[in-house]
Amino acid sequence: MKFLRYGPRGQEKPAVLDAEGQVRCLSAHVTDIDGSFLAQRDVIMAGIDLASLPHVAEPGRIAEPVARVGKFVCIGLNYRDHAIEAGMPIPSEPIVFMKATSAIIGPDDDVLLPPTSMKSDWEVELGVVIGKDCRYVSEADAMDHVAGLCVVNDLSEREYQLERGGQWDKGKGCDTFGPFGPWLVTLDEVADIDNLDMWLDVNGVRMQTGNTSTLIFNVPHIVHYLSQFMSLQAGDIISTGTPFGVGMGRKPPVYLAEGDVMTLGIAGLGAQRQQVRRWPG
Amino acid sequence: MKFLRYGPRGQEKPAVLDAEGQVRCLSAHVTDIDGSFLAQRDVIMAGIDLASLPHVAEPGRIAEPVARVGKFVCIGLNYRDHAIEAGMPIPSEPIVFMKATSAIIGPDDDVLLPPTSMKSDWEVELGVVIGKDCRYVSEADAMDHVAGLCVVNDLSEREYQLERGGQWDKGKGCDTFGPFGPWLVTLDEVADIDNLDMWLDVNGVRMQTGNTSTLIFNVPHIVHYLSQFMSLQAGDIISTGTPFGVGMGRKPPVYLAEGDVMTLGIAGLGAQRQQVRRWPG
Repeated sequence: MKFLRYGPRGQEKPAVLDAEGQVRCLSAHVTDIDGSFLAQRDVIMAGIDLASLPHVAEPGRIAEPVARVGKFVCIGLNYRDHAIEAGMPIPSEPIVFMKATSAIIGPDDDVLLPPTSMKSDWEVELGVVIGKDCRYVSEADAMDHVAGLCVVNDLSEREYQLERGGQWDKGKGCDTFGPFGPWLVTLDEVADIDNLDMWLDVNGVRMQTGNTSTLIFNVPHIVHYLSQFMSLQAGDIISTGTPFGVGMGRKPPVYLAEGDVMTLGIAGLGAQRQQVRRWPG
Repeated sequence: MKFLRYGPRGQEKPAVLDAEGQVRCLSAHVTDIDGSFLAQRDVIMAGIDLASLPHVAEPGRIAEPVARVGKFVCIGLNYRDHAIEAGMPIPSEPIVFMKATSAIIGPDDDVLLPPTSMKSDWEVELGVVIGKDCRYVSEADAMDHVAGLCVVNDLSEREYQLERGGQWDKGKGCDTFGPFGPWLVTLDEVADIDNLDMWLDVNGVRMQTGNTSTLIFNVPHIVHYLSQFMSLQAGDIISTGTPFGVGMGRKPPVYLAEGDVMTLGIAGLGAQRQQVRRWPG
């Protein structure tokens, strides 16, 4: 199933995408797509006749597919060739940092460069949404706690991230730096989580081409690993790292400028499109 | 005013402490103490006759004073003598990291060491709760966006923080590693934010003695500074750094063990007491 949310910011409605790719509204049955819904999803959805849900001919804005995200946890340098382009060692265990949840926007919302930003960069990533709370979960049981997958653009201000004290969070949580969606895709619709093509273009020029088959640490390991350090709760998101091709790695480096357009996607999980502007937009 | 929440986990009620130090329940007027309440606090409280609120003779458990915290942002190495004991350079601008909000517990709840933890450490800190959203706020206007102050114990697993990849979040967000409270104290009740004594004992032995007068970056600067990197929203917490005296800095280092009791406090902001156990408790 593909869950989504549509409508103006703050007034989003929950929906599903049907087999014909049409939006069908869930709001008669479900308050919102959030952690509390995800934790009871199977029971709630079993009671709903999908064919009876109203079509939404013009959904307008597509929002982030999960409301009230509790934590936005990210894995760094999780593709070998990206670690090399970033000039950093290949990690021997996952590198963990956090993105401010206030950075979250819909998949096609504008990205706003902070007033002083000169080094804002793109990162297409596979996102994992937690559906059932866990801590100290084994790798074998990890996927039972995953509600589904999504596309994330882990936007990163490289000066703030790397040249302003060494802790990365400062460059990862700027407002609008966390587009995710368009859909939360349940695992039964994903053919092979270890073989998903992903791509990112800037102004129509291909910058990143990757596949989850080259992840250093795969999704079950990441969920298991993170759960050793913090409980993962329904509605949390994990972004699993970006492949080769970020702006910082180019010679010379290329960063986002006002007017740029990013398009990105992952096979089966949908695509995003963000126009770049400078704050306040 | 001193706001607090009391009751079993998940069933907390909002309250205020009256001039005699007695708990008076707000639940007839207020759903909870959270960002949405804080953003309208003055209007809501102006309509309430405090003398008419019911006394709570036996509040039982005191919870964290703010529900549904959006972000838990922390400043590192913000006291000169602590930076030195940690063997790190004095920062030239604030170091920013994040604590998982799932780490939050009440001020007197048990702290649970992760199963493999050998280096869990204490950090008494001044906490700042945001009351009104802001971004790119000036230092002069910063305090208009602060709802009040509280005590935070920024518990830290030093191996996870420092020896497992270099990004600190891994050692900061373990479940139960974020006791805060007992109260959210509004600024009108704080005599001088730049002169607050703070202390922390382990098993009755004084470990930390500090005062906010020796902060490298003070509260208005921190709020201003953070708002350059992310919007701060009502109900977010900022923990401003710890003074000298953590376990890691002792020779030889001393870390928390099962059965230890931490007591800590800040003048005018109340005290905390945590019993240390090992997960699952």
